[in-house]
Amino acid sequence: MASAYAIGLDFGTDSVRALVVDVATGREAGTGVFEYPSGEDGVLLDRDRPDLARQHPGDYVLGVERSIAAAMEEAAREDDGFDVRRVTGIGVDTTGSTPIPVDKEGVPLGLSDRFRDNPDAQAWLWKDHTGHAEAREITDRARALRPEYLAKCGGTYSSEWFWSKIWHCLRTAPEVFEAAYTWVEHADWVPAMLSGTERPDRLKRSICAAGHKAMFHTDWGGYPDEEFLGSLDEALLRVRGTLPDRAFDVSQAAGALTDEWAGRLGLPAGIPVAVGAFDAHLGAVGSGIAPGTLVKIIGTSTCDLMVAPLEENPGDIPGLCGIVPESVLPGHYGMEAGQSAVGDIFNWFVRRVRPDGQGHEALTEEAGRLRPGESGLLALDWLNGNRTILVDQRLTGLIVGLTLHSTPGEIYRALIEATAFGARRIMERFEEYGVPVERIVNCGGISDKNELVMQIYADAMGRPIMISQSARTCALGAAVSASVVAGKAAGGHDGFPAAIRAMTGVRARVFEPDPERCRTYDRLYALYRRLHDAFGVEAAQGDDAPDRAPGDHLFDVMKTLLTLRDEVRG
Amino acid sequence: MASAYAIGLDFGTDSVRALVVDVATGREAGTGVFEYPSGEDGVLLDRDRPDLARQHPGDYVLGVERSIAAAMEEAAREDDGFDVRRVTGIGVDTTGSTPIPVDKEGVPLGLSDRFRDNPDAQAWLWKDHTGHAEAREITDRARALRPEYLAKCGGTYSSEWFWSKIWHCLRTAPEVFEAAYTWVEHADWVPAMLSGTERPDRLKRSICAAGHKAMFHTDWGGYPDEEFLGSLDEALLRVRGTLPDRAFDVSQAAGALTDEWAGRLGLPAGIPVAVGAFDAHLGAVGSGIAPGTLVKIIGTSTCDLMVAPLEENPGDIPGLCGIVPESVLPGHYGMEAGQSAVGDIFNWFVRRVRPDGQGHEALTEEAGRLRPGESGLLALDWLNGNRTILVDQRLTGLIVGLTLHSTPGEIYRALIEATAFGARRIMERFEEYGVPVERIVNCGGISDKNELVMQIYADAMGRPIMISQSARTCALGAAVSASVVAGKAAGGHDGFPAAIRAMTGVRARVFEPDPERCRTYDRLYALYRRLHDAFGVEAAQGDDAPDRAPGDHLFDVMKTLLTLRDEVRG
Repeated sequence: MASAYAIGLDFGTDSVRALVVDVATGREAGTGVFEYPSGEDGVLLDRDRPDLARQHPGDYVLGVERSIAAAMEEAAREDDGFDVRRVTGIGVDTTGSTPIPVDKEGVPLGLSDRFRDNPDAQAWLWKDHTGHAEAREITDRARALRPEYLAKCGGTYSSEWFWSKIWHCLRTAPEVFEAAYTWVEHADWVPAMLSGTERPDRLKRSICAAGHKAMFHTDWGGYPDEEFLGSLDEALLRVRGTLPDRAFDVSQAAGALTDEWAGRLGLPAGIPVAVGAFDAHLGAVGSGIAPGTLVKIIGTSTCDLMVAPLEENPGDIPGLCGIVPESVLPGHYGMEAGQSAVGDIFNWFVRRVRPDGQGHEALTEEAGRLRPGESGLLALDWLNGNRTILVDQRLTGLIVGLTLHSTPGEIYRALIEATAFGARRIMERFEEYGVPVERIVNCGGISDKNELVMQIYADAMGRPIMISQSARTCALGAAVSASVVAGKAAGGHDGFPAAIRAMTGVRARVFEPDPERCRTYDRLYALYRRLHDAFGVEAAQGDDAPDRAPGDHLFDVMKTLLTLRDEVRG
Repeated sequence: MASAYAIGLDFGTDSVRALVVDVATGREAGTGVFEYPSGEDGVLLDRDRPDLARQHPGDYVLGVERSIAAAMEEAAREDDGFDVRRVTGIGVDTTGSTPIPVDKEGVPLGLSDRFRDNPDAQAWLWKDHTGHAEAREITDRARALRPEYLAKCGGTYSSEWFWSKIWHCLRTAPEVFEAAYTWVEHADWVPAMLSGTERPDRLKRSICAAGHKAMFHTDWGGYPDEEFLGSLDEALLRVRGTLPDRAFDVSQAAGALTDEWAGRLGLPAGIPVAVGAFDAHLGAVGSGIAPGTLVKIIGTSTCDLMVAPLEENPGDIPGLCGIVPESVLPGHYGMEAGQSAVGDIFNWFVRRVRPDGQGHEALTEEAGRLRPGESGLLALDWLNGNRTILVDQRLTGLIVGLTLHSTPGEIYRALIEATAFGARRIMERFEEYGVPVERIVNCGGISDKNELVMQIYADAMGRPIMISQSARTCALGAAVSASVVAGKAAGGHDGFPAAIRAMTGVRARVFEPDPERCRTYDRLYALYRRLHDAFGVEAAQGDDAPDRAPGDHLFDVMKTLLTLRDEVRG
């Protein structure tokens, strides 16, 4: 039988990628990338509102056509067996939370003549932070009224998330808020558009987006209740009324590809389009996630994902960003953690501290000549705060052990090691709460490009580090979901375990921990923990640092510096 | 009456400077510098012994002739009133402890044919650290047998000092040790040579060198006793037997200029040559030291000096490097403190961390645009250990508050501020022990060159900062001592107060503390103290940190990093 193919669509921050994948083997037959034409690198900015980051929904529409056309063209050219009639389904991942205001028909306001040029009527990109005041108020209110809401999202509701953005729109752009019938995540809107199910009463919303960003949880029957939202602003109840009681995982179809889109894309009409999810979550799928496997998507920051069978409910794990049933895989809790900065820290040192000096390559070479502990340096990786497990954006970076002989290569290595220790702390937190980490798979740019970093992670975490086979794990994960919604009868797979087995893998090169280096790193990590707990853990949070010496507390130091800074800056 | 002149000779690490000074006004009539021809920048090194740093005594002899000749030539050319017959005396300062092995006639072994090329027979320069093992043993033995010896020198006997070097020579170069009748400090040998008093039984040894570096103190009758030295090594008793019971301050003449030297220098025979002292000590004199005045000589590191009348005995002050009667001024205790690195820290950032980036000037400009507290950064200035008040070479530098937005200018300013806070801690220590600081005079390269640093010191210390008038305070101080040994009758002065009043001064520009900046720095300094005490003070040393919160202790962190480093390096 000829091969069957699935298409994964991966909407990133500056572009969308389509990937045509052989369903039987995971072989990537063709790919195409389309860079969003609007704004700066695809992002609409506003000089007077530095926190603002929006995207034009029209770019998404154009992006579907162009990226799929390019991917199919490459597949047709490079893959003798490729047959467009054998494409069996489409899967979608996007950034998030990226909510879009839509009208009663589910059409984004930004596509209408009236709102085409109004930034508040476009997609509110994940990294839009205009709603930071609203996020704080939501957090405070939830702490008082609904602590269970916060327990599932790391204790703090973010300005990047669904309700912060909608509320900020209500307060600052009421004409947009009024015109919007409801708000739809980017990850939900693309599958709905392709399958003609975008009308809000037909739309299937993703459990991934709803659960991680919109306080949706089956424990309290779905989205936040009316009393809570009404206590924020009565006007939010109108939006609440448009939201369903149910959300869907990526094994389900949002609908079937419409005749119109089939014509535009040159694909078979009626093939299923999977419910969407966030990029990191389908990236974990594309990296072969399963119970016991920690997938780390390492880029400027990290997203760390694990799953656990629903019947092995891990309960609340303090410090994680989200624990949501079926947000990654059906039948499993999805658990999300992360480091606020990894690649960004290395970039900071290269671009900001040493803009005229060596680049990453030369520094990596210098750092690679050192043995663990040799520099006498130790750092805390909090230059962008600490997402997991301290959930504290107001922590800052620290480096200790500096001497007049300390070199750039030594500092660079200490920064790498700090991120490795941060990764270890996250792994340990999973295990402290009964979620064993049996296997670590890294993916993302740094995993591909920097072997030294991977070896340091293996040595500092004391575990073998595997690297995901694909360099496009998010798009691959979307294609995996497409193969599942297609089903075995149509040449796909009859569930995620089979699809993941067939379509994903890790590279032959595994970074094995070296016992001697591990011993040194164990000792350095003990010191890292001392600093981590002294500077990062409030006395009241003693349970987060059970083994610190009584009174190692400098918790207020970093905060006081920031308070002082903010006062001075006015 | 025509002006009288005095000559100051200032022997530094790479060169010697002669300064011809008008005794009535302190006007600098002429100066000459001679760079030592031997070794690298005047220092004899040994690739196989990286701690070794020696100097050839022949360079000192040549240096006297050449530097004085050049200074007198300039004075004759530039100063109409200059008359060589009106030169009334010579004063000398040198680095130290820089002991020289000499024969029974007081002639350095390095000047003999037998030992000319033997590095162990030359002057053992202050920064020679070959005796570090011996220093440790001396410290341990003194702690057990003679704690009072350590109380006068900061609690630790250094590898840079007299007995460590002699003992190391005994152990590693016995032929030199055997050939040496005794050991003479560079500061003692030059005046003795000029006045023909170098024979050991005639030599006047300086209280400054003996008291600060050779455990000499009137409290125990001079040099360390035979029981103590004999417990180290019986062979040291032979050296002990050559040492006098008395030492001399800089108001006394080592002798009179010999006919031979008068001829070689073109100076009047018989003029007095003052007893020598260390550069920083005469630098304090050249900056106008008096009770209540803290003189800070700021270069790559600092030397901080105060004096107190003998009748107001300050007792032991923990953490100071030395408290020696009459080591700076007759009739006063000399008290020495210091920071192990200041300019070296700024140089480290510019030359080592950012060798391809901006220099000091551009970074100073960037740093100068910031307000205190604005960066959110705070550093500990221990990149070369902490000399005062923690007396711990194994402390290291730290920086906290780093974010992805931290800039080189911000880091540079935080490093400057860290040294200012270190300076404040020293000032506070003097005051905690009843030595009030009423006036601060800075001198040395950074004081001359960097107004931003001086303003930050004023704001961070909360005191006006004055700058010494002369840019050559050490040589000027030596000339002051020459004017005192000459006496009023010969056109000089009848004591240091009068000489200092006439010959030294501060610049009109005083750096005044700004109340608002002081308030911010008070808050930052409170955090600096928290870190200082948490990382720098052993629990057992509680009295050094009376106001720290109970249990702020991370004292072992820096040490453990160094231990680990040393283990890894093997």
